[in-house]
Amino acid sequence: MPFTPTDYRPYDFANRRHIGPSPAEMAEMLATLGVADLDSLIDETVPASIRQSEPLDFGKPLSEREMLHRMRVTASKNTVLRSLLGQGYHGTVTPPAIQRNILENPAWYTSYTPYQPEISQGRLEALLNFQTMVADLTGLEVAGASLLDEATACAEAMTMARRISKSKANAFFVDENCHPQNIAVVRTRAEPLGIEVIVASPDALEPEKVFGALFQYPGTNGEVRDFTPEIEALHAARAIGIVSADPLMLTLLKEPGAMGADIAVGSTQRFGVPMGYGGPHAAYMACHEDHKRAMPGRLVGVSVDARGNRAYRLALQTREQHIRREKATSNVCTAQALLAVMAGFYAVFHGPEGLKAIAQRIHRKTARLARKLEEAGYEIAPEKFFDTITVEVGHLQRGIILAALKEGVNLRPVGKTKIGITLDEATRSEVIEAVWRAFGVIAEDTDFSEDYHRLPVELARESAYLTHPVFHMNRAETEMMRYMRRLSDRDLALDRAMIPLGSCTMKLNAAAEMMPVSWREFSMLHPLCPPDQAAGYRALIDDLKEKLCTITGYDAMSMQPNSGAQGEYAGLMTIRAYHRARGQSERDICLIPRSAHGTNPASATMAGLKVVAVNTAENGDIDVEDFRAKAAEAGERLAACMITYPSTHGVFEGTVREICEITHAHGGQVYIDGANLNALVGLVKLGEIGGDVSHLNLHKTFAIPHGGGGPGMGPIGVKAHLAPYLPADPFTGEAGAVSAAPYGSASVLPISWAYILMMGGAGLTQATKVAILNANYIAKRLEGAYDVLYKGPGGRVAHECIIDTRPFEKSAGVTVDDIAKRLMDAGFHAPTMSWPVAGTLMIEPTESETKAELDRFCDAMLAIREEIRAIEEGRMDRENNPLKNAPHTTEDLVGDWNRPYSREQGCFPPGAFRIDKYWPPVNRVDNVYGDRHLVCTCPPMESYTGAD
Amino acid sequence: MPFTPTDYRPYDFANRRHIGPSPAEMAEMLATLGVADLDSLIDETVPASIRQSEPLDFGKPLSEREMLHRMRVTASKNTVLRSLLGQGYHGTVTPPAIQRNILENPAWYTSYTPYQPEISQGRLEALLNFQTMVADLTGLEVAGASLLDEATACAEAMTMARRISKSKANAFFVDENCHPQNIAVVRTRAEPLGIEVIVASPDALEPEKVFGALFQYPGTNGEVRDFTPEIEALHAARAIGIVSADPLMLTLLKEPGAMGADIAVGSTQRFGVPMGYGGPHAAYMACHEDHKRAMPGRLVGVSVDARGNRAYRLALQTREQHIRREKATSNVCTAQALLAVMAGFYAVFHGPEGLKAIAQRIHRKTARLARKLEEAGYEIAPEKFFDTITVEVGHLQRGIILAALKEGVNLRPVGKTKIGITLDEATRSEVIEAVWRAFGVIAEDTDFSEDYHRLPVELARESAYLTHPVFHMNRAETEMMRYMRRLSDRDLALDRAMIPLGSCTMKLNAAAEMMPVSWREFSMLHPLCPPDQAAGYRALIDDLKEKLCTITGYDAMSMQPNSGAQGEYAGLMTIRAYHRARGQSERDICLIPRSAHGTNPASATMAGLKVVAVNTAENGDIDVEDFRAKAAEAGERLAACMITYPSTHGVFEGTVREICEITHAHGGQVYIDGANLNALVGLVKLGEIGGDVSHLNLHKTFAIPHGGGGPGMGPIGVKAHLAPYLPADPFTGEAGAVSAAPYGSASVLPISWAYILMMGGAGLTQATKVAILNANYIAKRLEGAYDVLYKGPGGRVAHECIIDTRPFEKSAGVTVDDIAKRLMDAGFHAPTMSWPVAGTLMIEPTESETKAELDRFCDAMLAIREEIRAIEEGRMDRENNPLKNAPHTTEDLVGDWNRPYSREQGCFPPGAFRIDKYWPPVNRVDNVYGDRHLVCTCPPMESYTGAD
Repeated sequence: MPFTPTDYRPYDFANRRHIGPSPAEMAEMLATLGVADLDSLIDETVPASIRQSEPLDFGKPLSEREMLHRMRVTASKNTVLRSLLGQGYHGTVTPPAIQRNILENPAWYTSYTPYQPEISQGRLEALLNFQTMVADLTGLEVAGASLLDEATACAEAMTMARRISKSKANAFFVDENCHPQNIAVVRTRAEPLGIEVIVASPDALEPEKVFGALFQYPGTNGEVRDFTPEIEALHAARAIGIVSADPLMLTLLKEPGAMGADIAVGSTQRFGVPMGYGGPHAAYMACHEDHKRAMPGRLVGVSVDARGNRAYRLALQTREQHIRREKATSNVCTAQALLAVMAGFYAVFHGPEGLKAIAQRIHRKTARLARKLEEAGYEIAPEKFFDTITVEVGHLQRGIILAALKEGVNLRPVGKTKIGITLDEATRSEVIEAVWRAFGVIAEDTDFSEDYHRLPVELARESAYLTHPVFHMNRAETEMMRYMRRLSDRDLALDRAMIPLGSCTMKLNAAAEMMPVSWREFSMLHPLCPPDQAAGYRALIDDLKEKLCTITGYDAMSMQPNSGAQGEYAGLMTIRAYHRARGQSERDICLIPRSAHGTNPASATMAGLKVVAVNTAENGDIDVEDFRAKAAEAGERLAACMITYPSTHGVFEGTVREICEITHAHGGQVYIDGANLNALVGLVKLGEIGGDVSHLNLHKTFAIPHGGGGPGMGPIGVKAHLAPYLPADPFTGEAGAVSAAPYGSASVLPISWAYILMMGGAGLTQATKVAILNANYIAKRLEGAYDVLYKGPGGRVAHECIIDTRPFEKSAGVTVDDIAKRLMDAGFHAPTMSWPVAGTLMIEPTESETKAELDRFCDAMLAIREEIRAIEEGRMDRENNPLKNAPHTTEDLVGDWNRPYSREQGCFPPGAFRIDKYWPPVNRVDNVYGDRHLVCTCPPMESYTGAD
Repeated sequence: MPFTPTDYRPYDFANRRHIGPSPAEMAEMLATLGVADLDSLIDETVPASIRQSEPLDFGKPLSEREMLHRMRVTASKNTVLRSLLGQGYHGTVTPPAIQRNILENPAWYTSYTPYQPEISQGRLEALLNFQTMVADLTGLEVAGASLLDEATACAEAMTMARRISKSKANAFFVDENCHPQNIAVVRTRAEPLGIEVIVASPDALEPEKVFGALFQYPGTNGEVRDFTPEIEALHAARAIGIVSADPLMLTLLKEPGAMGADIAVGSTQRFGVPMGYGGPHAAYMACHEDHKRAMPGRLVGVSVDARGNRAYRLALQTREQHIRREKATSNVCTAQALLAVMAGFYAVFHGPEGLKAIAQRIHRKTARLARKLEEAGYEIAPEKFFDTITVEVGHLQRGIILAALKEGVNLRPVGKTKIGITLDEATRSEVIEAVWRAFGVIAEDTDFSEDYHRLPVELARESAYLTHPVFHMNRAETEMMRYMRRLSDRDLALDRAMIPLGSCTMKLNAAAEMMPVSWREFSMLHPLCPPDQAAGYRALIDDLKEKLCTITGYDAMSMQPNSGAQGEYAGLMTIRAYHRARGQSERDICLIPRSAHGTNPASATMAGLKVVAVNTAENGDIDVEDFRAKAAEAGERLAACMITYPSTHGVFEGTVREICEITHAHGGQVYIDGANLNALVGLVKLGEIGGDVSHLNLHKTFAIPHGGGGPGMGPIGVKAHLAPYLPADPFTGEAGAVSAAPYGSASVLPISWAYILMMGGAGLTQATKVAILNANYIAKRLEGAYDVLYKGPGGRVAHECIIDTRPFEKSAGVTVDDIAKRLMDAGFHAPTMSWPVAGTLMIEPTESETKAELDRFCDAMLAIREEIRAIEEGRMDRENNPLKNAPHTTEDLVGDWNRPYSREQGCFPPGAFRIDKYWPPVNRVDNVYGDRHLVCTCPPMESYTGAD
């Protein structure tokens, strides 16, 4: 009867929208697994000894609409004033076409890091544009695909300088005019590495005493200075010159390369990326050709595919920390891809003419502002500047700042008697007039005479930049929109198919969660705005912290780390500070299982710890006896152990409590990597099973999208005894901060908060259970065809499973790569390849995938197994077969087909959609060729319209 | 030097973003045309005699950012309260996934009406879902792909009833409980057709006196009544029963089909489409199988493609008015496709269980609200209801409404002593409590006991609905998102390629223009909210009207018509009212050239005018002598002439002033169809060359996107003497209104306003000039290959050109259809086919296309001409050739290729992108098969996941 109330809950976000399998599908899957119900499966999988006692409970979960209402109320507690605070953060105008078509488009924001180049050509091209832009503007040959923020880029530049410098000195010079957060993070990084940091005026530089020096251009108070003499002196002493430069200013003034700089770093935030209360934005790094192999982070390069057509891919992958482990000198593992794409498009959108015009406009506004203040008797410094001036105001500082505040403008106090003012693209004449009024000057900003400037003439830029055709495309929005669409169509992201990447937790990024990111109350706040203007952010962050503490069983949380690897580093630095505070600075050993992610030992090394590797038992578990022995051997030198739970092998090890106890018994602290938290939420609290610190990948477990390789967020939770040692405020300039902004990439935090609010405690717990169900379902369906390498005592895997593809190399000459590429033909991104075990595939479906999609994937995998069998049995050629020729493209179809299998078999394997098939835009990419002929900027002679 | 200010204007929206060709490209194009500069071309093209004297000037154009700022200020003048005003408009919750992936996605909103089915399969499927949903909910067999609004749907139902009724009566009965705007529009429509409208209680129905009757379900004041007896009585009298029903209520209560209704109409607004101050929303119409050919508007049907695979297309196209002209009985020519897609997805997203749960929730809330009011002593009517109640309050009416207003709630005054309350999906307990407080009842809405209802038990719905698998898809957002993406990927829209449709002006719909549409201040206003809550809208509409008047040279403007055809009708009705007011009701003849768009005679007929066709001269111009003769013949019966300028043949006729003068000399009024306004803005004012009335297609000239076939807006401008006769307020219920809401589709008006603000007078004028340049450039490049049918005296075309493809039928057996399909292989939507001249193509590139895109199109067209030549010269088979086999799909590629040309030639003709090629999802669609085997609801046995 229609009047009998239905028990269907249309607004149940967790079970209706977020979790993939429907109740009916789950029943089928459980039947396949031969268990009575979901809880039975969980009981078989998760050891009872570690289960949390109380269910997770955050009260009634909110519907999408209620969440958005609460978010709106929270956002309204933030006040958007015009911030002229500078210090590396600037107002900017995001072109609406970029906002709509990139930032708000799941085709861009749900994509993964472009490790599989054939299905990532679009964002690889976009990142290559970014690299070309950075290389051109800085005047250096090679630029990376972005770093996390300017401050960490400065620190990375320091350690890179140490790697490449031939100086024997152990000190690093930092220009006192650097932004405080840059100085702070450099100091933090230097200390455990035993590097002495000298902060002083460039005039006081003693080149022979340092292996490198970092200068800010323009200085934090506006100084614009030619560092050529200093860099020449550094070079004479075999030291490295680094310039952190505002890329917009480089359209007008001498570029770091022309000053002789070896490395340039900086932030591309003002290229159309909102301030977002501190992040995320893309930092950049550029260097000379000679040093490219020493550069941290990702680098997009140009290569060819199997047909000899141009194709992009990540270059020099061997530099990455998962290969170098404790020998790594950087743990950088992610980038700010989405933001780099936006910044790159901003440059494409405006071209060199536009960027120059924007820079000139900003400068002329600043010059007008300064002139009127000077006419009113104020003393302005520096005499020559770009966009930032400092005004001497004596005892009026507070009064003027308050007056400006009343006008809706934030000004920066400098020292006790000065005020800093930094103008930007978004500064209107009304704002300039408001500033004047705050200074007691009544005037109209009408004198737009365009020849008045205050730039240092001797620093005029002489070289061309952005000469590549992509920066000279027709800039009509129609053309731009189509270019963005073409690039995104080349890529396979979550909006088209499952991305079953082990350890990467590619779950749904719901539209409702993403919407607040674009709201001006979140996007337009300067991280240094007065705290009362950010009351909404504070409320959000406090509540999010509290909930994350409840979920993990920790007592305190720092939101500062803006990537997982940075969370590891921050956590270990917290442990280190704790030991030191207790007078146990001799504790310097960190036990890490061999199966750990490469960032673990890299982070430990960066935190000044010595890594001792612990063996892995046959079944993939940590070898407890070896652990016990190594811990005992370390004794009072034991600082920490670093484990992942459930293990990187995808199982719930029963011995985790024991490992923790052993560590504690020796006075060590337990760091549990939170990468696999998606298998724990609601079932197990890391803080209860023995963890002292963990980082949480909000971009894995808590629904922040991967953005094609960033943004990420890696906040750390700690037990109460460690709380006093959490990262310090970066804006003080003192050591202790790990990233540029106090709350990392603050503007993506609404995503995780929204996720938790809508899921509720029960929903989050159910998600965990279904993540485990989905993984076990795949393991079951692949049974017989593939061996699952590791299982728990109950015969179950956790939220991911590793299948062994090594035997096929011998039996059929088929590598894990061949399987990965063949999956593209079926319309899938491959699972994680060769990690943590070489030659295997690690599959993590997450809870967001439906049974239909899991089945489509399993069908594809089973069909691939049959193709391998055909080779094994000699029915198919070992070299000329669908696996070796994968991925297949329309180029294959349209050309001659000299293959011992049909076009149909090649292009439409089981799993592939028929009408809606995804066609990889290139054939298999040749990595070796690309690394041998390294090109990391846009290749010439390209017709970027794509028309042939 | 970097300090010399550049003259590059990065924020110049008109010349930098909206207009396609860059200055350099324009120079090349002008050289190709052999003219010195753009103004020379315009002088050669547009007769000096009609040029406006003063340039268009709206002051300084705004940048995107300044426009958004102004828009925000304007939006903030609207106040978003909770409106419980009902009357056909309801709060609703748009699922964020639908908002992001449909409403805000250019792949959906920039697409054109699906006349070319092979490249429109995605939206055709989405519209078929909508039709199936409507057919199921109403219990009728056939539903159309949406109508403009509920009121016009009622009027269309009346005229359809007249067509299909076998009754000889000439009156139409309207339930007095219909919404006032439905009554108003029915009255307006009936009058010129000589239909008598009887508005009364259903109890007073005298079936033998009417040919049909319209009932509202639920009634405007909440009455829920079974119309079965009335409809039986009507049938006995051979009259037609029509029910306008709330589709959400139909999930619970007896459907119109079960009552015996012949036709059902209604609004699907509350299926996730925001109220938007009146529109746009999709109205629906459903009827019995027998009557489908009499149904107005579009109908999506199922057919097969050349391979026998299922394919969708618009069915029964022959019903359309452009074929029937003055014999047409409806001028419906567009739909509300984008909104119908949204409503259809809302049903897919919630499924029957979800819709039912939502309906139940709304009802239970209403029942709780009513009970507490009754307990407090208020008298509630009706006794049984769905979501609407009427409360008797005596003299307290004003006080309670004001008290509610203070609580942030709008209530509806009914009569002088009653208050109407309509609850909706978005009504929270807080709102219910606020209403109680306004009535003096202090209570908490906590009693969620679920068995209390006030539905009429005897009206319980007994039949199933939404049983098709698409409504039972897994409803996880991941799955929904991918389904939306797959559908949009099947279609070719402006975000991938030019759509050079003559007369349709598919120009850029800029992201900045689109953004405000989603703002709650625009989207969440009820059209009946108190005027002070819509002050922002009023300011926007007033300024937009003023600017449109300036552009067109008219003195007054009505924003009511929500399509071009409705604008025509409204304009002619205005003329008619003017004549009548002057005592000249004998004026009933309308002169219309034979080349006119089919809607022109259809609209004239609907307005009660007799159409007299005027001949077209050899050169395509109106035959002035014939016009003069026909006007003289009409004499004092001449009501109007209806012309299009520039003509539908794409030329500026030199005789337009003469035509107007002749008309005026005979006392007639001049209606100039504004379809081609994109060739005039800034150059010619219709009101200055003799026009008395024109409609403006805001979705052509003023940047509102086509949305796959709606929304549109067709406001009319008139000279001062006609201003008193413009459409009347629909909410009074009196005759004179042409659409449901006073400002038509108000919520898309910000798009046109933004466009004008950012373009400025000079920018708009430049756009017109470049539109003419682009068309002439194409005409020039195609010279020699194709004949341009019509040119102006200067040898130039206007903003579009017609090329003659008729000779190829004889020479090579190639039809215009073959060419259109072959263009798909090159990645283009075909130009307008066979209109205004059968067998030709009308090409309109608009100003937004770059030279590169124009060249790509011309390359494709020239290559097609060479393929035709190969057939003509016997080098290519007449039946088996790339034109006859077009479009080519990946199915062709993957299968056997028994064709006398290569795969390469078939699939990658000149113009086609290589990597980024668009692949049509189906081969050529068989229209005849589809009409012979008409299926207009989702076919069964479909696996809607798309996996094979």
